[in-house]
Amino acid sequence: MGSDNAPQVLLNALDELPLPPDVEIVAIGMPEYKGIKRFRYAVATEVIGMDEHPLLALRRKRNASLCVGLRLLKEGAIDAFVSAGNTGALVSSAKMILSTIPGILRPALLALIPTKKNPVAVLDVGANVQAKASHLVQFALIGAAYQKARGIEKPSIGILNIGSEAMKGTSELRLAYHELQMMSLAPFRFVGNIEGKSVFDGDVDVLITDGFTGNVFLKTAEGIASLILDRINAHIPQEELKKLQPELNDLQRHLHYAEYPGALLAGVKGIVIKCHGYSTPRAFANGVIGAVELAREKFTQVLQDKLDFFHLKKKFN
Amino acid sequence: MGSDNAPQVLLNALDELPLPPDVEIVAIGMPEYKGIKRFRYAVATEVIGMDEHPLLALRRKRNASLCVGLRLLKEGAIDAFVSAGNTGALVSSAKMILSTIPGILRPALLALIPTKKNPVAVLDVGANVQAKASHLVQFALIGAAYQKARGIEKPSIGILNIGSEAMKGTSELRLAYHELQMMSLAPFRFVGNIEGKSVFDGDVDVLITDGFTGNVFLKTAEGIASLILDRINAHIPQEELKKLQPELNDLQRHLHYAEYPGALLAGVKGIVIKCHGYSTPRAFANGVIGAVELAREKFTQVLQDKLDFFHLKKKFN
Repeated sequence: MGSDNAPQVLLNALDELPLPPDVEIVAIGMPEYKGIKRFRYAVATEVIGMDEHPLLALRRKRNASLCVGLRLLKEGAIDAFVSAGNTGALVSSAKMILSTIPGILRPALLALIPTKKNPVAVLDVGANVQAKASHLVQFALIGAAYQKARGIEKPSIGILNIGSEAMKGTSELRLAYHELQMMSLAPFRFVGNIEGKSVFDGDVDVLITDGFTGNVFLKTAEGIASLILDRINAHIPQEELKKLQPELNDLQRHLHYAEYPGALLAGVKGIVIKCHGYSTPRAFANGVIGAVELAREKFTQVLQDKLDFFHLKKKFN
Repeated sequence: MGSDNAPQVLLNALDELPLPPDVEIVAIGMPEYKGIKRFRYAVATEVIGMDEHPLLALRRKRNASLCVGLRLLKEGAIDAFVSAGNTGALVSSAKMILSTIPGILRPALLALIPTKKNPVAVLDVGANVQAKASHLVQFALIGAAYQKARGIEKPSIGILNIGSEAMKGTSELRLAYHELQMMSLAPFRFVGNIEGKSVFDGDVDVLITDGFTGNVFLKTAEGIASLILDRINAHIPQEELKKLQPELNDLQRHLHYAEYPGALLAGVKGIVIKCHGYSTPRAFANGVIGAVELAREKFTQVLQDKLDFFHLKKKFN
């Protein structure tokens, strides 16, 4: 209910989505929208706006659509929850209602973004404005478990920083660098600091950052991609453009972050996908498809097992 | 001397640079490179490496090439100084040797980057890892004065943040937002928070940020530009590519940040240009050309006058 395009645009997007017969959509929103589309409906009685203060809003609006959705997830009535609403409210509410996986103090928003080689899992892209070194180390474990679940044997991990030297950046980043370097039994390969320009070379599988920097990183990538595609259209003569349209469309799809399947709120007990507040119908639909895939893989359990295994290894060595 | 390509590549770049007859280059470096090119030479006896701790290095190496250069600038023997060396050492050394313009506590690295409309002045892109609200406000004044000097009557100013709402981001950003909003006599128009994706729409003339985030912003833009140009080359058939080469070259030049004329260390008494440590010969040459332009405009004096005028206005109102 709370996002910029909610609810009509999102309901239409879901209505047009071709889903396998064993997947069922439950829409969650204000009573007046019940029954206007074919899928099941759960009623919420309040809406948290995009610009409301997350904690104040949660205290007052316990029946907001995102709270209702998270409670359904907690009870097992649904297998995954997708939201394009207020990020802060979603993260806080998920921590309270679902709680975090043992060993994880703070969940992080994880986005998979394209590089010249394999996609890199970037976290945190917006769940926590600031992050302590201990949180960054936990993000590394979550990111490694995520990429292992995607089939990468020993994921490489880098810290997003302003230079490759160990002493670069804030004191929390330097401490995180030191701690990650010391983890000899880690289920990943720590490669040190990575600059924004090198991330896209695709040499790391996981990129660790605080939620503020990660969010700026993601949205800057989105902005410059749009600028460049704009310039291509302006620079290339019309008749040439027409011939190249299929290639350019493909490129645009690949780079248009607004069409991305959203970010995974990793580290809570349950599959929660956060789409942009300004998600296009297509982006929101992609978020739902991504949630279906993660639910089929029982991703929360897989993540928990991988983290348990690591904690166990640490204990016995 | 201290940069990744120094000194031979940089000396060659300068040697090939067509400069007007009234511009003279002074190269500053170790004695063994003296006289191998046509231009004047100032001898330095030490080199600060890219990965040395800035303050420790400055204490031990008072005759490093960047210190010699800044002293020549202070003495008026040169009109501008261009360096591709250790950023931290350059910033600290410039503060100590040149001192800052009255009213400015911290200099900031200012980079001009392309958008869909006019270029935006982004600062700080790396002089200060962290910034207090009061520093961010000073960056706004410097940025406004810079864009006024470039002919923009009342520059619009935004804060790089993770959402447009006033409460977004860290406490320092919220405080800076509040202070900038209160400045009714400001020589600029404060437009609030700007997300990374919106910066490239070109709706702000000045973008304010701390040096860590600004540096990540700049290098991310560089990285994604390289990724996209790579993808274009891969997606467009060879024969089409050949026909489009002039347009693509033009686009690449425009977006290749490695060819950018470097960042201005704004707020110190003197024209100091910082190029990337990994500057190509072309980028370094562009940095020198940019320095010549700023020296011709007597930019330091212009900036100081514009800031004086603003402080005066504040005093009398």
